[in-house]
Amino acid sequence: MKIAIDAMGGDHAPKAIVEGVVLAAKEFDDIEFELYGKESMIREHLTDEKHITIVHTDEKIESDDDPVRSVRRKKEASMVLAARAVKEGRADALFSAGNTGALLASGLLIVGRIKGIDRPGLMVTLPTLNGNVSSFNLMDVGANADCKPANINQFATLGSYYAQAIQGVSKPRVGLLNNGTEENKGNEVTKQAFQLLKENQEIHFIGNVEARELLNGVADVVVTDGFTGNAVLKTIEGTALNMVSLIKKTIMENGMKAKFGGLLLKDGLSDLKDVLDYSKHGGSVLLGLKAPVVKTHGSAEKEAIYHTIKQIRNILASNVVTDVVHYFEHQATEKG
Amino acid sequence: MKIAIDAMGGDHAPKAIVEGVVLAAKEFDDIEFELYGKESMIREHLTDEKHITIVHTDEKIESDDDPVRSVRRKKEASMVLAARAVKEGRADALFSAGNTGALLASGLLIVGRIKGIDRPGLMVTLPTLNGNVSSFNLMDVGANADCKPANINQFATLGSYYAQAIQGVSKPRVGLLNNGTEENKGNEVTKQAFQLLKENQEIHFIGNVEARELLNGVADVVVTDGFTGNAVLKTIEGTALNMVSLIKKTIMENGMKAKFGGLLLKDGLSDLKDVLDYSKHGGSVLLGLKAPVVKTHGSAEKEAIYHTIKQIRNILASNVVTDVVHYFEHQATEKG
Repeated sequence: MKIAIDAMGGDHAPKAIVEGVVLAAKEFDDIEFELYGKESMIREHLTDEKHITIVHTDEKIESDDDPVRSVRRKKEASMVLAARAVKEGRADALFSAGNTGALLASGLLIVGRIKGIDRPGLMVTLPTLNGNVSSFNLMDVGANADCKPANINQFATLGSYYAQAIQGVSKPRVGLLNNGTEENKGNEVTKQAFQLLKENQEIHFIGNVEARELLNGVADVVVTDGFTGNAVLKTIEGTALNMVSLIKKTIMENGMKAKFGGLLLKDGLSDLKDVLDYSKHGGSVLLGLKAPVVKTHGSAEKEAIYHTIKQIRNILASNVVTDVVHYFEHQATEKG
Repeated sequence: MKIAIDAMGGDHAPKAIVEGVVLAAKEFDDIEFELYGKESMIREHLTDEKHITIVHTDEKIESDDDPVRSVRRKKEASMVLAARAVKEGRADALFSAGNTGALLASGLLIVGRIKGIDRPGLMVTLPTLNGNVSSFNLMDVGANADCKPANINQFATLGSYYAQAIQGVSKPRVGLLNNGTEENKGNEVTKQAFQLLKENQEIHFIGNVEARELLNGVADVVVTDGFTGNAVLKTIEGTALNMVSLIKKTIMENGMKAKFGGLLLKDGLSDLKDVLDYSKHGGSVLLGLKAPVVKTHGSAEKEAIYHTIKQIRNILASNVVTDVVHYFEHQATEKG
């Protein structure tokens, strides 16, 4: 398998990207890496070239570039060239830590949608904090600010396939994020989405789930529109980060006793931070495209890059994309 | 001032309600309380009758009753009778810890909207965890699952009046919850709401704010539709609760050293829980009605009831409702 990597995206590019790739290349003998970006800068951090090819380009997409415009105009940008390699079958997956909007646009405009999928959705895997399962998938977390009920229903199918293939959940519980658990709850979109989900034979729909229960592992796949999903994801991040810094403050400002207590708790508290560090669960995946397009946090360090590559390897090995293609093609044929 | 109180609403009713009212009646000599509910049950917990009148009724709205239907049919329910007292000018404010939907319906159908307000919004005051300000107001957190841009714009005016009158913020910073800070970000509703907010002369609009920044005190008033606001509020609650229980687990499962550390940190950690206990900031207020209608958590104990009464007293003393009425009437006249 071959992964096309935008070496120039993210806060620590190309260093973190290149180092993460070298780490992964050492472990996985079955992946070929194509690093797109400035050769001289990439070489600075390339300690081992095994399985790694550099495709030089001077152009790149900046984090504040307009997504669609930059993808259309910067034809030689590292992200765009990597996407084109996937489109033309020269690589099997696209990976970037850069401009999220531009990566979504590259996925949509260059890699292309699966036939029958109206809108791809961005899915993130988050750790549960106190649940019986270790993680759950939330989708869409921002690819589509406005969603139709049918889009949410497709996210459910896509997320379900993913949870089966990658996380080995045999019958993923799919929940619809809503403002109450009763069937009649919600806004216009979720009320209609509920009915479609109920009729969707491809998934195991467990009904509405509330945002309060997400981190308890109430479902394996939680579907919502991209606006709400984005707000929920950022609220989890913000609340968790604020609480960690509040704990630190508590330890620092409550005298020697608390400082000593904090010292004794240190190992435990660092576990707490690990739980939050969801980059270990990989990057967010744009599902519904002809090939895996994966994004990791702009602030990702080499470890997160490594974990995301591992995730992409799992996705490619599982053939989940092919399975999804078959399902939606079959559906289209049935309808036609 | 006179407050009509649904003594039968909430998980600990009527005990917690009555005890909280007695607590408040002792402190505030300027409030008359009308307790609506089963007299014998109320009397069990009524240690002091000063300033307190009981209005007996056998009927009540259950927590799982259909909101609109129960308000229409259960004409003798404690909540409905209390709302009618406000409507007919026999009381100045309505307070309940019961069925949220039914209270919203009582507010809308019985107390009534301020002229010029299309949809009242439910506002909650939340503590900031690491900000320079101690709290912020989020609105709508669930009164309207579907909102038009004009509704969100009215929430901004209402919330701004509230922050000025009750929290003493001279020029409240109003932010629009969005999936990015740039002006062109958002879904169809927020994009249009942004333009209305920009032109709203009555408020100090600071632009889009992201969910990640809410607990940092990025704005004094954050406006959004009731579906997203509800999801964000519940996500904050769920994440915070999960983290507190994770800290406890960390302390219990990391051996003697951690247990000892936890003991030393005990005071600090209980501060942490206090910060989260937003009932100290009062209940959620349904803004845009002819009189204050205030809801507190169903699980509220007497302290939370006491704090909410204090808040209602502040609202009544500030004349914020009258000011809002004048503003929207004036606006209606100008337009007409």
